[in-house]
Amino acid sequence: MNLDRFRDHPSLFFVDWSLRGVGQVVFQNNPLSGLVILAALAWNSWIYAAICVLGVISSTVTALVLKADRAVMRDGLYGFNGALVGLALVAFTSEDFRTGAIPSVAMVVYLVCAAAFTTMAFASMGAVLAPYKTAPLTMPFVLVGWLFLFAVLKFDAIDAGPMAKPVSPDQFSETVPYVLATWYEGIGTSIGQIFFQDNWISGYLIVIAIALNSRVTAAMALLGAVVGTVVAAVYGGPEGAVRDGLFGYNSALTAMALGGVFLALTWRSLLYAVFGAVISSWLWASVAIFLKPIGMPVLTSTFVLVTWLMLLGQGAFKSLAPAPTDEPTAPEESRAG
Amino acid sequence: MNLDRFRDHPSLFFVDWSLRGVGQVVFQNNPLSGLVILAALAWNSWIYAAICVLGVISSTVTALVLKADRAVMRDGLYGFNGALVGLALVAFTSEDFRTGAIPSVAMVVYLVCAAAFTTMAFASMGAVLAPYKTAPLTMPFVLVGWLFLFAVLKFDAIDAGPMAKPVSPDQFSETVPYVLATWYEGIGTSIGQIFFQDNWISGYLIVIAIALNSRVTAAMALLGAVVGTVVAAVYGGPEGAVRDGLFGYNSALTAMALGGVFLALTWRSLLYAVFGAVISSWLWASVAIFLKPIGMPVLTSTFVLVTWLMLLGQGAFKSLAPAPTDEPTAPEESRAG
Amino acid sequence: MNLDRFRDHPSLFFVDWSLRGVGQVVFQNNPLSGLVILAALAWNSWIYAAICVLGVISSTVTALVLKADRAVMRDGLYGFNGALVGLALVAFTSEDFRTGAIPSVAMVVYLVCAAAFTTMAFASMGAVLAPYKTAPLTMPFVLVGWLFLFAVLKFDAIDAGPMAKPVSPDQFSETVPYVLATWYEGIGTSIGQIFFQDNWISGYLIVIAIALNSRVTAAMALLGAVVGTVVAAVYGGPEGAVRDGLFGYNSALTAMALGGVFLALTWRSLLYAVFGAVISSWLWASVAIFLKPIGMPVLTSTFVLVTWLMLLGQGAFKSLAPAPTDEPTAPEESRAG
Repeated sequence: MNLDRFRDHPSLFFVDWSLRGVGQVVFQNNPLSGLVILAALAWNSWIYAAICVLGVISSTVTALVLKADRAVMRDGLYGFNGALVGLALVAFTSEDFRTGAIPSVAMVVYLVCAAAFTTMAFASMGAVLAPYKTAPLTMPFVLVGWLFLFAVLKFDAIDAGPMAKPVSPDQFSETVPYVLATWYEGIGTSIGQIFFQDNWISGYLIVIAIALNSRVTAAMALLGAVVGTVVAAVYGGPEGAVRDGLFGYNSALTAMALGGVFLALTWRSLLYAVFGAVISSWLWASVAIFLKPIGMPVLTSTFVLVTWLMLLGQGAFKSLAPAPTDEPTAPEESRAG
Repeated sequence: MNLDRFRDHPSLFFVDWSLRGVGQVVFQNNPLSGLVILAALAWNSWIYAAICVLGVISSTVTALVLKADRAVMRDGLYGFNGALVGLALVAFTSEDFRTGAIPSVAMVVYLVCAAAFTTMAFASMGAVLAPYKTAPLTMPFVLVGWLFLFAVLKFDAIDAGPMAKPVSPDQFSETVPYVLATWYEGIGTSIGQIFFQDNWISGYLIVIAIALNSRVTAAMALLGAVVGTVVAAVYGGPEGAVRDGLFGYNSALTAMALGGVFLALTWRSLLYAVFGAVISSWLWASVAIFLKPIGMPVLTSTFVLVTWLMLLGQGAFKSLAPAPTDEPTAPEESRAG
Repeated sequence: MNLDRFRDHPSLFFVDWSLRGVGQVVFQNNPLSGLVILAALAWNSWIYAAICVLGVISSTVTALVLKADRAVMRDGLYGFNGALVGLALVAFTSEDFRTGAIPSVAMVVYLVCAAAFTTMAFASMGAVLAPYKTAPLTMPFVLVGWLFLFAVLKFDAIDAGPMAKPVSPDQFSETVPYVLATWYEGIGTSIGQIFFQDNWISGYLIVIAIALNSRVTAAMALLGAVVGTVVAAVYGGPEGAVRDGLFGYNSALTAMALGGVFLALTWRSLLYAVFGAVISSWLWASVAIFLKPIGMPVLTSTFVLVTWLMLLGQGAFKSLAPAPTDEPTAPEESRAG
């Protein structure tokens, strides 16, 4: 099947670009991956699947209206931050985090503007980071997400309940023992939490979506989730947070980014990626505790921080090499070790 | 009248540069605008007018002593952050925010050093932002202002009362209805708050000061204030905060910056500026709520953040073009749409 | 004595590089300075001396494994942030801040990873700052230290007591009068606090260690400590915080950095350095009050912030000139005024 056949289609190109946008949340420039991810979201809650589509469309349309660079839009890179900011705004203002709630009209306007704003933030961060051969990653989403989540709590027109979702490890009981389900649910939900899905089956479906485009990246996602979960267990993280995937979702993203997507995959970069996953898991706890007093979730800030600090200076380390292509698709082609 | 006749005068040049410094708070490289702004401040409180002069002199003298680039000094660009930091330190340590209080000697030394420090911060931020064709805006003021406001509360020698001024929307009653004065006072005070003036007449006088140099920028200032106020009203912002101009001052600055000062004014950039004004208004509420626990005011941080995120990546969007001249004076000459 | 004879020695080079790493905390690319500093730490507590060695080894080995640039490693520049992060993690998790406590195995693993992570952070910040001819200073330590200190409080496996050390001026009594010991202890401890040593004799030993390599920098360290202490006294800082060296350690570092290390030493840059020391002292109080609600110490954040803001824009000021050599060793050779 030729996956690129709609990419420059006169009318369907937009569907193709938007699906790639969904896929780019996990670095997959592939419309089929995006489609399977939407299915994984719908498995958990059709509301989230619909919001994800709304977010990706808002930010991609904004890029079109502003006449952004076509090559960047074609890769779905203007879409993924919009998708995430939409999901986050609904997730953290819904009474039930797991299923989400249908947003009000005022909230939809707000959400669409937030998603559109990520397009500008993405271009700005991209311009600043370009000389250092480093990508904005999900920082536009994290920054815009935080800023828009705060304001939401103070506008009458938006009916935000108290944030129902625990956002920090110290909000979980410390006496619950680890069981088998802690492990297989925790690892799956770690992947699910990347898209705010409290559902381990959705998580494993997303792994399949990644594997459709790159088996190596799918393996790195699982490895990162395992590392994050094991680190939490060894250092005594509460069972509820582990099973909820909270210690693992940043680790999974960091492992993918460093293990093949932005660095050529070798034994050294594999160890580098595992190290990054360990740090990401510790720092999730750190940032969560820092943000708890103001009631903000960590989002993917730990992943971005760790990955930036491990990529910006890559030129100083001769044992690392950038992945050979600008287009982060299939690390299979870049394995050198 | 030749407005530039004192600009290189052997002894009066410093008066000219300082007045331009006052004007540059609202992007006006024009000594007459600066003079009218000082009159607008004096209309509200002669103390603020005097502090504004002290601040602009401190930072401009520092630039002279350090032998800064003459062209930059001549445009008043080393002065405006010093003026603002002086006003902020007095405003937030006075028992009566509206009139301000005459500062103690220890406070004057402190304030002069803070204003001098903005000169170094301006040069540093300017150097970092130069490759991206983006200006430091009022970030030196925001950063130095926050840092110096915190310390002030803990030094015995500086007699700081409790911060009397509400700094966040949730400090206002939510049950007061909107009346006609909410609108005309709120819009005027939005402009006044740029200079910490709780006075709507001073605000409209500042609009006149801007119009003396650029009618387009004056119109954008009003448009931004209107947008910020309307957005707050639609989303249920409390009447007291709206009438106080708090939802509007960042919007007014963002609208000016994007609507003619840094981007060539076209229909597209006009919409871009209105979008920025909407976001600035929402994010004022957001940052205010974030900062309230530590008792800090938002200052113009929202304007800087939104404008940076909408300007740094301007090169990626073909539908935007930079204003044709480096010297942000009269957008009339750059209208292309 | 040829101080460089072990620098390229086939087996002892690592000892040389590590000792330089210790010296680089106070800008001394000199193994003998590093050795005397370790002795100064051991005078106060052998635990801190051992932890300092562990930290510097962890980050330097990481640089070797990643094949970092040899010239940078030879100067000890990959070591000093690791040394500091190790000291900070032990200091702020020990029941007795003054002596420190022997860390658990889980803590040692954590600490070694944190020190290793500073190596990556140093390379990344170095890459970002390189175009502006500005060094990362101790920012890798500050950032990694903050992030790792937070998480530590929530992991069962790491037995962190309540942070025993006061971290903010308002935690000290305001009624204790200044005595003679306030001064000579406060100035000495200001230098000691750079390495978390609550010991004024250790502080003066560190001054000797600096003087072994550069008498000018040793003098600037003392001058900075004096300025920080005097400023605190004039503005009514509590005696306990002054005697503890808390108002002075950032000032001492700023004075060294601006007075000879990064700027050529002239009368103008001497005044510039004194101004920076004044600001650093004020802002220590400011950042301490900002961080107190979340229980975090200031570390050397004020020094980094002030020095960056006074160095990044140096090119804009004709009255300043960079120190003539890249290698910050002996400012004696660069005095121009």
